[in-house]
Amino acid sequence: MTEINGYQQSDDENHIEVVDLPTLGEEAQKVIPTGGFGYISGGSENDWTEKVNQQAFTHKQIVPRVLSGVDNPSTETSLLGIDTSMPILMTPLAAHGLAHSQGEKDTAKGAAAAGTIMSSSTYSTFSIQDIAAVGNGAPQFFQLYLSKNWDINEAWLSTAVKSGVKAIILTADATVGGYREADIINNFKFPMPMANLENISKNSQNGQGTGIKEIFASAAQKITPDDIKRIADFTKLPVFVKGIQSPEDAMLAIGGGAAGVWISNHGGRQLNGGPASFDVLPAIAKAVGGRVPVIFDSGIRRGSDVFKALASGADMVAIGRPVIYGLALGGAPAVEDVFNHLNMELKTVMQLAGTKNIAEVKEALMTSFNY
Amino acid sequence: MTEINGYQQSDDENHIEVVDLPTLGEEAQKVIPTGGFGYISGGSENDWTEKVNQQAFTHKQIVPRVLSGVDNPSTETSLLGIDTSMPILMTPLAAHGLAHSQGEKDTAKGAAAAGTIMSSSTYSTFSIQDIAAVGNGAPQFFQLYLSKNWDINEAWLSTAVKSGVKAIILTADATVGGYREADIINNFKFPMPMANLENISKNSQNGQGTGIKEIFASAAQKITPDDIKRIADFTKLPVFVKGIQSPEDAMLAIGGGAAGVWISNHGGRQLNGGPASFDVLPAIAKAVGGRVPVIFDSGIRRGSDVFKALASGADMVAIGRPVIYGLALGGAPAVEDVFNHLNMELKTVMQLAGTKNIAEVKEALMTSFNY
Amino acid sequence: MTEINGYQQSDDENHIEVVDLPTLGEEAQKVIPTGGFGYISGGSENDWTEKVNQQAFTHKQIVPRVLSGVDNPSTETSLLGIDTSMPILMTPLAAHGLAHSQGEKDTAKGAAAAGTIMSSSTYSTFSIQDIAAVGNGAPQFFQLYLSKNWDINEAWLSTAVKSGVKAIILTADATVGGYREADIINNFKFPMPMANLENISKNSQNGQGTGIKEIFASAAQKITPDDIKRIADFTKLPVFVKGIQSPEDAMLAIGGGAAGVWISNHGGRQLNGGPASFDVLPAIAKAVGGRVPVIFDSGIRRGSDVFKALASGADMVAIGRPVIYGLALGGAPAVEDVFNHLNMELKTVMQLAGTKNIAEVKEALMTSFNY
Amino acid sequence: MTEINGYQQSDDENHIEVVDLPTLGEEAQKVIPTGGFGYISGGSENDWTEKVNQQAFTHKQIVPRVLSGVDNPSTETSLLGIDTSMPILMTPLAAHGLAHSQGEKDTAKGAAAAGTIMSSSTYSTFSIQDIAAVGNGAPQFFQLYLSKNWDINEAWLSTAVKSGVKAIILTADATVGGYREADIINNFKFPMPMANLENISKNSQNGQGTGIKEIFASAAQKITPDDIKRIADFTKLPVFVKGIQSPEDAMLAIGGGAAGVWISNHGGRQLNGGPASFDVLPAIAKAVGGRVPVIFDSGIRRGSDVFKALASGADMVAIGRPVIYGLALGGAPAVEDVFNHLNMELKTVMQLAGTKNIAEVKEALMTSFNY
Repeated sequence: MTEINGYQQSDDENHIEVVDLPTLGEEAQKVIPTGGFGYISGGSENDWTEKVNQQAFTHKQIVPRVLSGVDNPSTETSLLGIDTSMPILMTPLAAHGLAHSQGEKDTAKGAAAAGTIMSSSTYSTFSIQDIAAVGNGAPQFFQLYLSKNWDINEAWLSTAVKSGVKAIILTADATVGGYREADIINNFKFPMPMANLENISKNSQNGQGTGIKEIFASAAQKITPDDIKRIADFTKLPVFVKGIQSPEDAMLAIGGGAAGVWISNHGGRQLNGGPASFDVLPAIAKAVGGRVPVIFDSGIRRGSDVFKALASGADMVAIGRPVIYGLALGGAPAVEDVFNHLNMELKTVMQLAGTKNIAEVKEALMTSFNY
Repeated sequence: MTEINGYQQSDDENHIEVVDLPTLGEEAQKVIPTGGFGYISGGSENDWTEKVNQQAFTHKQIVPRVLSGVDNPSTETSLLGIDTSMPILMTPLAAHGLAHSQGEKDTAKGAAAAGTIMSSSTYSTFSIQDIAAVGNGAPQFFQLYLSKNWDINEAWLSTAVKSGVKAIILTADATVGGYREADIINNFKFPMPMANLENISKNSQNGQGTGIKEIFASAAQKITPDDIKRIADFTKLPVFVKGIQSPEDAMLAIGGGAAGVWISNHGGRQLNGGPASFDVLPAIAKAVGGRVPVIFDSGIRRGSDVFKALASGADMVAIGRPVIYGLALGGAPAVEDVFNHLNMELKTVMQLAGTKNIAEVKEALMTSFNY
Repeated sequence: MTEINGYQQSDDENHIEVVDLPTLGEEAQKVIPTGGFGYISGGSENDWTEKVNQQAFTHKQIVPRVLSGVDNPSTETSLLGIDTSMPILMTPLAAHGLAHSQGEKDTAKGAAAAGTIMSSSTYSTFSIQDIAAVGNGAPQFFQLYLSKNWDINEAWLSTAVKSGVKAIILTADATVGGYREADIINNFKFPMPMANLENISKNSQNGQGTGIKEIFASAAQKITPDDIKRIADFTKLPVFVKGIQSPEDAMLAIGGGAAGVWISNHGGRQLNGGPASFDVLPAIAKAVGGRVPVIFDSGIRRGSDVFKALASGADMVAIGRPVIYGLALGGAPAVEDVFNHLNMELKTVMQLAGTKNIAEVKEALMTSFNY
Repeated sequence: MTEINGYQQSDDENHIEVVDLPTLGEEAQKVIPTGGFGYISGGSENDWTEKVNQQAFTHKQIVPRVLSGVDNPSTETSLLGIDTSMPILMTPLAAHGLAHSQGEKDTAKGAAAAGTIMSSSTYSTFSIQDIAAVGNGAPQFFQLYLSKNWDINEAWLSTAVKSGVKAIILTADATVGGYREADIINNFKFPMPMANLENISKNSQNGQGTGIKEIFASAAQKITPDDIKRIADFTKLPVFVKGIQSPEDAMLAIGGGAAGVWISNHGGRQLNGGPASFDVLPAIAKAVGGRVPVIFDSGIRRGSDVFKALASGADMVAIGRPVIYGLALGGAPAVEDVFNHLNMELKTVMQLAGTKNIAEVKEALMTSFNY
C-alpha cells in the first residue's frame, strides 16, 4: 500500500479471477478506504436512479435463438474509425488515485491491453500527458468539465490534442454536483491533487482537501450548443456530448455539432429521480437515427446488459465503477481482466442469441415481459 | 427538556445538519415521547396510503436536461400575491407542543426565517394570536376544523382575521377521525391543552387528556360548499379547501367559492386505502385548469418530489411531519434548516433538469416508466 | 380450557379489544393448538391465492370525498328480505370446535348480537338444530356439502328447514379437497366429531380422527345445475351457489335456479393458482346485473376492503377466519366484537368517502393506480 | 453411500413422502455433495431467468370452475402415439450419477413405474444401452448434444435406435455453455465419467475431471435446420428440437423437419437475461398451430404450473431438477413418487377447474391479473 496524506492506496499489480462484475465491488470495498469507496460507489439523494439503472435491464429480455449456425461470434467493432476488440470502452471517472497509486495510468494500460478505448477525466489524478504516455498509441478520449475560464479550457484542450486523444467528451449533465449523501455522511474530501487542475489552471485549487461539490462549483454551469461548436473548432476533434437522457437533447447536441451522443445519467450520481438510462435509450437511438454514433453508459454489469443496450440502439457501451474496483484489486492487469471478463460474458450471450457479430446484435430479437 | 403533565418536550434552539428529510424522523424519535411520536408519524389502519404517498413519486421520472444554459435557478414564487423564497410552505398540523415547548411559535419563526408561509391548525398548542405575534408580519394561514357551533367558528375566524392571517384553510377530509392504530396501541391522549379550544370556545373540552378521535367528534361532520361561501363572506379572505383527491371535488369546491384547491390525503392519516396523493394530482390540476392555485401535500420528502409535484400541476407544495421533526431537534433554527435543505435539493434538481425558475419547472419533461 | 381427545379448546367468554382483524390471528395462534390453527389459517399448495386475495384489494383505491354533507352514515342493509345491521355476514366454516368448546353455538350468538347472519357448515362441530336453538330467531343460513347419498342430503335439508334457516348455501368449489400443505405437515386429523355427520348420516364416519381430504372424499364430486334445482324444490328456500369465480359459472348457477351468487375462492384453500377473489368480482357482478344478490368473500380484513367489494358490485360480504380467531379469544362476546369492529372501520371509511348508506357505497368513485 | 473418486453418491432405494416439489431441493441438498448440487440446481450468471421461470406462472391464473359435473378426471394422454399416465415426462439432464449411484437407470425405472417417458442425455452417467435395458420396454427418448464429429453422432444415434428409443431430442440451445457461476465458485468438475463419451467416442475425453464448459466445447456450435433432417433421415425417428423460445425458431425447426417443438430455456442455465419460458409459450404454440406436438419445460414445480402450461398451448410438460432431487433421496421408488405427486396435484387442480381430461385442460379459462 502507498499512503498519501493519510489515505491508503493499493499498489498491487496482478491478474484477478473475476467471477462477475457485481461482486467486484464487495472485494474492492475491503481495499479502498471508506471515503473513497463512498465517493466511487455512491449515487445521489437516496440512490434511487442508481438502483433502477441496473434493474431496468430486466425490462427487456434477450430471446435465445437456435439453429442459426453461429460459432465463435466476433465482438470486434469500431467507433469513429477506431477499431476495438469489443463494444465496451472506459467511461471517464474522476480521481482513479482513490483506488490505486498508479491511477489512470494503470487504467489506460489495462484498457489498451484489452484492446479498447480509455477515457480520462478532467479531474483525473494524473495529467492528460502522463495518461497518454502510457498508452503506446492506444486510443484515448479526453473528458472535459468545462471551466468558466476559457483560457483554462483551451489549455486543457491543447494538451489533449497534443497528447493525441481521438475525441473530446463534453460532460453536460454536471453543471452542478448531484446531492451525494455518502460524501456528506463521510465528510469526504479528495486526499490527493488532480493533476490537470494543478498543472494547467495554475489557480490555487487543485482539488486536494476539497469535495466534489466545491470542484463542480468552479466549473461552468451554463453549457449551450455553442460550446460544442467552440470545442470542435478549437480541437478539430470529434466531440461527444455526455449526459444525454432525452431525444430532445440528443438532437440539440447534434444540431450543435456533436460527433456523437453519449447517453448517461452519470451512474445515478447527478439527478436522482430521473429514469433509468436504459429505459430512455430506445427513443433516443431512434431519434438519432444513425446520424452519429450513440454511446451508452449507466448500469452495465453483465454481458447480457451490453447485449441489450446494443440491441436497443447503442453502438458501444461504457463502464466505470467495475473497472475502478478491478484497478484497486490488481492495477493494470486486473483492469484488463475486468474488460475481458465482461466481453467473455457478452460473447457467450451472442452465441446463445444466435448473433455472429455486433451488427447482428443490433438487430436481435427481444421481448418485453413484466417481472 | 420541559415537562408538562408528565410529557417531556424538547426546548432546544439550535441549527441542525440536515442530511435528508427521511432520516430526520429517526433522530426525532429519540427526542419525542412514544405517544406523541406515534400520533405525529402514524397513518390510519395499516398505513398503506401513507406508504404509497411516498412510493408514488417513483411513478414519474424527471428527465435530466443539458445544454440549456441555466445557472443558479431561482426557486422564488408567489401564491395569492404573497411572495415566497420557495414553492414550499408549512402544512397545518395539530399540537406542535408534542414536539417542542415553543410549539407553533417556533415553527412560525422558522418558516418566516426561511421566507415561506406558516399554516397553523385549529388544534394548535398555542393560540392564533400567539402564533401570529411571533411572525413579524410574515405570512400565515389559519386552518379551520369547522365546529358544529358557528359561534365558535366565528370567534376563531374573527381572531384569525384580526391576527392578520392571509387565508383560511378549510379542512374537509376530516369529518371523522381516520382509524389511527398507533394512537390506539399507545392509548394516546394529548398531554397539553389546545389553546384555541381553551381560549375561544369556553366549553369544558380543551383537548387535554383526550384523543384526536374525541376532538374530531366535536367538529362538524357535515361540510358542504355553502360552508366555503359562509367562511369567505365572513372573513373576506381567500379560502382553500384542503383534502381534495378528485377532480369532482375540486370543481365542487371552486363552484362553492374556494380561492384555492389544496390536494391532500392528510398524509395518509384519514381514509386508508385511498390512492397516493401524487397519483391524483395530474387529473385534478387539469380539471382546475388554472382557475385557482393548487397546493399539493402528502408524501413530499425530497427536492425531486417537489419538482415532480410542480411539474404535474401543483403551484406550491406543503410539508408537515419533517418540519415537526426538525422542530423537536432544534426549535425555530432547525425548522428553518429543514425548509432550506429541501429547497437546496430542489434547486439542485432544477439546475440538472435545465429549468431556471418555477414557471419552467411547471413545463418540465417527465417520463413514466414502471419500476 | 376444555380438553377433548387430547385437544385443548378455549372456553373463555369475554369481550376483547380488537385493534384490527389481521392481528387477531397472531393472538389466536397462542390459544388454538397447532394442528387446528394450521387447518383454520392455511391455504392450499404454497398459499399463493390465499395471499393475493388480500393483496388484490390494493388494485383499487377509494377516493376520499369531501363537501358531501354526510354524517353518521348507516351500514344497515338487507339480503333476501332479511334486515341486518351491517353488510357483513358469517361465512360457513367447518368445525368451530377447533377454536372454542361452544363452537358454532357461540359464533351464532355473537353474529346475532352484532345484528347479522350466521352461516353454519355441514361439517360443523354442533348440529344444525343446536346451532339454530341459540339464535333466538336470528337469521341463519345452512351450508351444504352435497353428499353422494341423497337420503343424507334430504335428512340434512329437512333438519335445516325445520330449524328455520333462511337459505341454503350450496358449496360448489370443493368437489375435492384442495392440497392443504399445513394439514399434511401437521398430520392434522379432526379431534372431535362433526355433529351432522354423527347424528344424521348414521354412517360410521363422523369426522373424528380423519382429515378434511377424507371427509371431502365422501362428498359428491359431480355437482351440476340440476342439484341447485333439486335443493330448491325440496326446501322451498333460496339457494346460494358458493365458490363462483367466473361470469360463466355465475350465469350457469342463475340459470339453474340459484337465488344468489356467492363469489368465493374458499379463502384460497381450494384451487391455488387461481386469481384473487376481489379481482374477478367486477366482471361477475356486471354479468349478474342485479338478477340475484351477490355475496363476496375471501380476503376481507379491513373496513376499506368491505367498501371496495361493495363498490365493485357485491351486495354483502362474508368473513370467516377472523371471526374464528375472535371465537377462540373470547367466545360469543368476542365474535360480536369482531363484527362490530369491522363495521366500525367500514363506517369510518363511508364517512370519509362521503357515502351516507350502502346504496351510495355501491356507486362510489374508485381509482386503479398500480402500486 | 457409494464413493467414486472421493464423491459421495446416495444408493438409497425407498419411497419418500413428497410434501411438494420445491422443498425436495432442500432435502436433497443434505445428501448431494456441494459441487454436484451446485451443478444441478444452478442457473447462469445471476440466475435471473432461472428465477423468473417460476415466477412467470403467476402471470396467468386458473379460474376455478363449478357445476361442471366432473369427477375423477383423467390425466392420461399420448405423445406421438405413446400412451402415458400423465402429461409429464422426464427432461434430459446430464450425469444423474451426481445424485445417485444408479443414476439414469433408476430415473428410467421410476419414470416407467409412474407410467411416463424417460429422456436420457448424451452426457448421462450410464450408457444408452444400460439405461434402455432397465426400462422393460417403457418409452424412452434420447437427447443428442451434436458432436462436431458426425461419426460420433452416428454411433450414438445407431445405439439409440438399436436400444429402441422412440424419439431423438436435439438440444439446440447449448452450442456453448451458459456462464454458470455456481460451477466457477465451486470449481466443479465431473467426478465420474460419462458412459456415452467413454464407450462410443473412443476419444480421450470422457467427462471425468472436466467441467461442463469444456464438454460443451467439444460439441458442435453450429447447428442448422439441415442437422434436423440429417438426424431424422439417419434414425427414421421423430426429432424434437429442444431449446425453442420464439415463434421464429419454432417455425424454422418445423421447416427443417422437426417432429416436435420442445420449448425450454434449459432451466435458466444457458442464456440468462432471456424471458421466462412460460411467457413465450402462448405465442409459440399459436404459431405452431397444431402442426407438431409442443413440449414445455423450465420452471414447472406445481400441479397448477402443469395445468397452466397445457392451457397455454403445451401438449406435455417435462421436469428435471425435482426428479433428480427425488433420485438422490430414494432412487427409483422416489423418482416414481415425484412424478406421482405432481400428477396428484395436477389431478386436484383439474377437478377444481372443472376439466375432466387433458383435452379440456387445453381449453380451460384463465385470467391475467397482475400481482
